[in-house]
Amino acid sequence: MIQRPRGTRDFLPDEMERRRHYEGKLRSVAKRFGFRETATPIFEDSELFIMRSGPNILDELYAFKDKGDREIALRPELTAPTIRMFVNNMSNEPKPIKLFYFGQCFRYERPQSGRYREFFQFGAELIGSATPDTDAEAIALAVSMIEELGLKEYRLRIGHIGVLRQKLLDVGIPAENMAEILQKLDKKAYDEAGPIMEVLGVSQNSMDEIFEFTDTIGGVEVLDRVPGEPGDYLRTLASRLSAMGIDGYDIDLGVVRGLDYYTGVVFEVEAPVLGAEKQICGGGSYTLSQLFGGEEVFSTGFAIGFDRILLAMEKEGIEYESEGIDVYVVPVSDDTRPDAARITAMLRKAGISCDTDIMGRKMGKAMKYASTVNSKFVAIVGKTELESESVTLRDMSSGEQKLVLISELVKEIQF
Amino acid sequence: MIQRPRGTRDFLPDEMERRRHYEGKLRSVAKRFGFRETATPIFEDSELFIMRSGPNILDELYAFKDKGDREIALRPELTAPTIRMFVNNMSNEPKPIKLFYFGQCFRYERPQSGRYREFFQFGAELIGSATPDTDAEAIALAVSMIEELGLKEYRLRIGHIGVLRQKLLDVGIPAENMAEILQKLDKKAYDEAGPIMEVLGVSQNSMDEIFEFTDTIGGVEVLDRVPGEPGDYLRTLASRLSAMGIDGYDIDLGVVRGLDYYTGVVFEVEAPVLGAEKQICGGGSYTLSQLFGGEEVFSTGFAIGFDRILLAMEKEGIEYESEGIDVYVVPVSDDTRPDAARITAMLRKAGISCDTDIMGRKMGKAMKYASTVNSKFVAIVGKTELESESVTLRDMSSGEQKLVLISELVKEIQF
Repeated sequence: MIQRPRGTRDFLPDEMERRRHYEGKLRSVAKRFGFRETATPIFEDSELFIMRSGPNILDELYAFKDKGDREIALRPELTAPTIRMFVNNMSNEPKPIKLFYFGQCFRYERPQSGRYREFFQFGAELIGSATPDTDAEAIALAVSMIEELGLKEYRLRIGHIGVLRQKLLDVGIPAENMAEILQKLDKKAYDEAGPIMEVLGVSQNSMDEIFEFTDTIGGVEVLDRVPGEPGDYLRTLASRLSAMGIDGYDIDLGVVRGLDYYTGVVFEVEAPVLGAEKQICGGGSYTLSQLFGGEEVFSTGFAIGFDRILLAMEKEGIEYESEGIDVYVVPVSDDTRPDAARITAMLRKAGISCDTDIMGRKMGKAMKYASTVNSKFVAIVGKTELESESVTLRDMSSGEQKLVLISELVKEIQF
Repeated sequence: MIQRPRGTRDFLPDEMERRRHYEGKLRSVAKRFGFRETATPIFEDSELFIMRSGPNILDELYAFKDKGDREIALRPELTAPTIRMFVNNMSNEPKPIKLFYFGQCFRYERPQSGRYREFFQFGAELIGSATPDTDAEAIALAVSMIEELGLKEYRLRIGHIGVLRQKLLDVGIPAENMAEILQKLDKKAYDEAGPIMEVLGVSQNSMDEIFEFTDTIGGVEVLDRVPGEPGDYLRTLASRLSAMGIDGYDIDLGVVRGLDYYTGVVFEVEAPVLGAEKQICGGGSYTLSQLFGGEEVFSTGFAIGFDRILLAMEKEGIEYESEGIDVYVVPVSDDTRPDAARITAMLRKAGISCDTDIMGRKMGKAMKYASTVNSKFVAIVGKTELESESVTLRDMSSGEQKLVLISELVKEIQF
């Protein structure tokens, strides 16, 4: 028996309905915030992702040559393609450009709980603006999305990569060692970062100061430890968030984010219920367009791991109930089938979700199928009832049934 | 400047909004018919598509080896993956199983008008039923979808591949030559089919009769020329379609469809406005599950070329108007920005789509941006108005403006 590829999923009707329901909620929040949806291809020139993340990314990509010998790769994320699209087609549009997207991404890695080779991301980018208001807008959207989904417990942490980067430059870390050290600091692996920094000539004193800085976490009061412009910037951000009713977050000066192109504010959201793989959202301000041949443009964006957040909701016991259909139409005998078909078509035209037997089943079996598909009503089409242009309508939850004129059926069901 | 891969597209906000709008309409019609959505991975084991279409399909596929040396391919269509999913996960579900799907497919072919390397299909499969009612249901769904989109001119042709196949067997065409001859007949290439049939020993008389048969097209009266069970089957189908209000189609005994696995009724829909590449929908009854390691299960399905039908609608002059947003909030000066942020957050929470300036712009520029994003109202947040907990609300279409209490803003805008 032929199977689906490892690390991928099939979404059966119940699960798919749940996913579309929550996808729709995320989309509607984004639209309410004035963001507009875009889409880019499933694959891109591999070079795009190498430019963003360095050549090591190739190890994790589904990369291949097409028949025209072009190096292409299934997209591992959606920020680079979106900024590529902006550089190609949208760079002259009035700023800020507020975009969102939802789609599959692909990573060749070992499948494990909540990690798939084909996974889904919902994300947003605010392009062409570099103010605290911009970051506040991105964070407010992320929070509103998570709230809209109904996730009960989550933790938002906000930091500033620019300050940390400056501190590392100040103690003499060369640009080429920056990424490596940031990665260690991201994991709080001070025992690994220490020796590297020592070799680079950083004093124990400076090191301690940096480790203390990245361990700084707390309310807005910790912003007192952030000097100069970034401190003011973060205080304005905190004030905007407060105006928008967003308060329950931590300032965490150790939020690093892996990639070179982040410039200022960075943020992450975790769902504690997920245990080790708990990050459900990450973002920050960055410049990326200049790497792809455009002008340097400041942006802020984030991505939500759609699979991960759905898993968190499931673990929190948030249940989604399938909608079912409104009416199942049962012909009592073969000679009422044309009338059953006519009534079914009429109800559907009126916007009522409706199904009917197409397998030539006898009434009992058809009634059983009506329960299987979770129908609210059953309309029984019999010869006697048809003589008075009526059907018997049964309410499947109460079990009550009554004779209803076909001409009044729509009204009766919509009521 | 790095570009998107050849034959793929970026969907910018206006186009994407239009696509989501019509995608939503198709989804809602399918749900109204009692179909439920499913999704399968973007790539599958290459073998799946070879089993469906023969090894030649490889020439058109984006096929490659993953890092685990597995032969995988980006899906060129969605019927085989859906039936694979059915065989793997759903074979014990109560029948009929009514599924629909929407997603990207991929073909490596020369890009041309209305043909892309990444394209979108909307399709449906009715699994586990083999009655005229089943085919009628599939055809009715396809027609209702096309009607719902508002396409004005389209042509539905219904045929029966089983009859033609039997006729070819009767005149002595061996099974191994069947596909080749059916392909010629599909294109009405009688001058190519003739010589092949002659070599196979088919008499001129029999040939003429077959060519006359595949040239038979007309109303339900041509069903008189279809003998035996298939004739009765098609007459019942016509009666069901009529009960569902579907009449304006042709019976075309020359509708062939390329693939071996079609068994009975086949149908196609064309949009004449598209010229040469006019087919927008194709489907029929088939058995495919046994090829993938399952039991033989009768099914009927169809796919709509989403890009193609949108192109047809565009050519017919059907316009889609972008929604825009409800309110743009303009702070008059920097000291009213926190209030602007508060009011924006309040409106969004009430379900109103709302945006505000995040770039520190002065009022004039912010007003201009409000027009750019097509906002119905502008809420002007000034110091004087704030003293009475009010804002100035301007209706952008009439130009009228008035003072509105912030506490009444939601009501005022929703009215």
